[in-house]
Amino acid sequence: MTASATPVTGSLHGLRVIELGTSVAAPMAGQILGDLGAEVIKVERVGRGDDSRSWAPPHWGGESVTFLALNRNKKSVALDYKDPRGKQVLEDLIRDADVLVHNLRPGALAAAGFGEDELRRLNPRLINVELTGFGPDGPRAGQPGYDPLLQAYSGMVSITGQDDAPPSRVPVSLLDMGTGMWAVLAVYEGLRRRDATGLGCHVELSLLQTALTWLSMPLLSVLAGNPPPGRLGSGLAGVVPYGAYPTDDGYVFISAGNDAAWDRLCHALDAAPLREREGFATNTERVRARAAVDAELGLVTSAFDTTEVLRRLGAAGVPCAPVQTLDQVVTDEQVAAVGAISPLPHDRVAGFSVVNLPVTFDGARLAHRSAPPDLGADSVAVLAGLGRGPAEIDELVRCGVVQAAPTPVSERVETL
Amino acid sequence: MTASATPVTGSLHGLRVIELGTSVAAPMAGQILGDLGAEVIKVERVGRGDDSRSWAPPHWGGESVTFLALNRNKKSVALDYKDPRGKQVLEDLIRDADVLVHNLRPGALAAAGFGEDELRRLNPRLINVELTGFGPDGPRAGQPGYDPLLQAYSGMVSITGQDDAPPSRVPVSLLDMGTGMWAVLAVYEGLRRRDATGLGCHVELSLLQTALTWLSMPLLSVLAGNPPPGRLGSGLAGVVPYGAYPTDDGYVFISAGNDAAWDRLCHALDAAPLREREGFATNTERVRARAAVDAELGLVTSAFDTTEVLRRLGAAGVPCAPVQTLDQVVTDEQVAAVGAISPLPHDRVAGFSVVNLPVTFDGARLAHRSAPPDLGADSVAVLAGLGRGPAEIDELVRCGVVQAAPTPVSERVETL
Repeated sequence: MTASATPVTGSLHGLRVIELGTSVAAPMAGQILGDLGAEVIKVERVGRGDDSRSWAPPHWGGESVTFLALNRNKKSVALDYKDPRGKQVLEDLIRDADVLVHNLRPGALAAAGFGEDELRRLNPRLINVELTGFGPDGPRAGQPGYDPLLQAYSGMVSITGQDDAPPSRVPVSLLDMGTGMWAVLAVYEGLRRRDATGLGCHVELSLLQTALTWLSMPLLSVLAGNPPPGRLGSGLAGVVPYGAYPTDDGYVFISAGNDAAWDRLCHALDAAPLREREGFATNTERVRARAAVDAELGLVTSAFDTTEVLRRLGAAGVPCAPVQTLDQVVTDEQVAAVGAISPLPHDRVAGFSVVNLPVTFDGARLAHRSAPPDLGADSVAVLAGLGRGPAEIDELVRCGVVQAAPTPVSERVETL
Repeated sequence: MTASATPVTGSLHGLRVIELGTSVAAPMAGQILGDLGAEVIKVERVGRGDDSRSWAPPHWGGESVTFLALNRNKKSVALDYKDPRGKQVLEDLIRDADVLVHNLRPGALAAAGFGEDELRRLNPRLINVELTGFGPDGPRAGQPGYDPLLQAYSGMVSITGQDDAPPSRVPVSLLDMGTGMWAVLAVYEGLRRRDATGLGCHVELSLLQTALTWLSMPLLSVLAGNPPPGRLGSGLAGVVPYGAYPTDDGYVFISAGNDAAWDRLCHALDAAPLREREGFATNTERVRARAAVDAELGLVTSAFDTTEVLRRLGAAGVPCAPVQTLDQVVTDEQVAAVGAISPLPHDRVAGFSVVNLPVTFDGARLAHRSAPPDLGADSVAVLAGLGRGPAEIDELVRCGVVQAAPTPVSERVETL
């Protein structure tokens, strides 16, 4: 099987998804659904659209990389649904839809007349997927939740980084993107439930619960009565050596999970004295002498360049990997071989490429249909599809309820 | 909607999944499928079973928290399928199954006679989900891949932690668990494809590609020609202040994403001089003076305890959250309110609890059926279900092809 087989269309072809998504979590869900074949109509605010369109740099072709990374294979409709005429358009969209996925501020959608009861009335078959920060109950239910704040609240930040430094966060949108993935899983499940019952359902997901799932191993440890884990940098509680060690030109990650591997490691790096050092012989001893082992081993690895450490440890069967920087990753031979990154034509962004969905079926990837859309790029076509005539659409555009033409990037307001 | 509604059974009820899983990635997939209703038969090695059963502490009731966190709602069959009689049992299991999910060392399953072609011959409707470290093609295709090594290889480690310290890793099994989630998504998709075609498929997933998906925003930035991001601790490239700031008794996470929030923050913390400091007035200036702003603001926040900083910033509408430790999280009021953690009866582990799947359907959680099984707990029942008579089962057990009684935890070999 290779990833070079002809791309295939996902089984969600024919499904209509309305995404009232902003920033990361709901757009992530919408993009995965679109990759899997669904028609995803992203309903955005008139004027600015999805917040992430105007996030601070890094940019590509004037658009934030976050927006570009999360909005391919979608249509964009810019609509003011707080206006009664705009509200009718959204009602029509929801009547025709299979799935609604949204991560607006808690209560905002209900305030606009699209609470759970109204949605059920409009479309009993709708799978209504609601993404919040803190979940539907409890003292913080109504609070907005952002990925880093929930990383802090959930305990993730407390265990990330070096022990002798302030805590770090996970530098990707782990909770937003993870919640988007759970949302897609819930959509598939909701579709199967609907096949059985004829009815949609209300799915609730939160960044908080996504975080707790990532943390389930250390949480069980604490529930068992063990002390809460601290920060171990790149290390692991029960194994030394384990982690990123410096080389002459970077870092290598080494995992010597047992005493035989430690012996081979010392031998491979001509570090016999380290192997013979008192108190370094067994993993139990090395865990106790963690700082000393890490420091001494770091002196040894620093004498070689990364390639040489990897060559020696690889030959000795010690698990290891280079700590690659992202410029190395995008030109990496293995990344190219698996076809993880592909070009996708984009009107304004020369050379635009995307990270593909990380799954193949019988060796085939899912086919792409379109680059991330300009704001309102599909407003006219989608409204026409709802039966609105040209005169009516013109009028909606004229009075600002609908935005049909793309807003030039330069005219968008920066968040900051 | 509340999470206290009667638990429901997932739509995968009636589906049979064979998990040839070890450690984290495939067991995560198996557990999610089990939570969603599938019958998950975990086929383990005779004697030791899943590696994670005997991982180093932390433990709960003598079992590693990793095993306990990833193996509820499954049956355990301990089987030596390298023995011809054991191989027949696995063949029978696969003939009856809908899904096979496996993360053995690349090539190991094919070497045992269960390559893709053999699997297709045994069961053309089988959805065969293969999880590897580096994917099916390329120079590293055959290499085993562990979560931390792929975090290093993919660039994740290079951007985690403080800039002036060695790189850190993400301290949870982000790539393993994420790949397990993608696997479940692929199973749902595979089922829909099978509904349409009558045929199963071969799904391939890898930790490497899962990592690249998490990193898609910074990867697009690098593809756009921007320099590779460095390590910013808890910070964000384009916004200051943003991150974990020390208090008298811990840390608070603060995100002041615009100049108005900065003004309110300075006011709320009685830090007028900070607001008036030259070069601190606008976000652009503060990004330039990142180290100085962070240090100065840290001095201000350090004068208060965490509760007081949160009270003041909350009142001023500045997004913030406590950096909770995991012992705080397990007793947190919000975590309790959403019902994220539930008790689950376990024969040997008093007070055993699990982190529930982070999704509700019309307010209802998915029902649990069983705690993580002892090794071989279901061997006899499953073999009987395949039509093996008592005498034959006894003989298979006697000669060590099948293990039927649980191995006492104390007799298991530690990995180290």
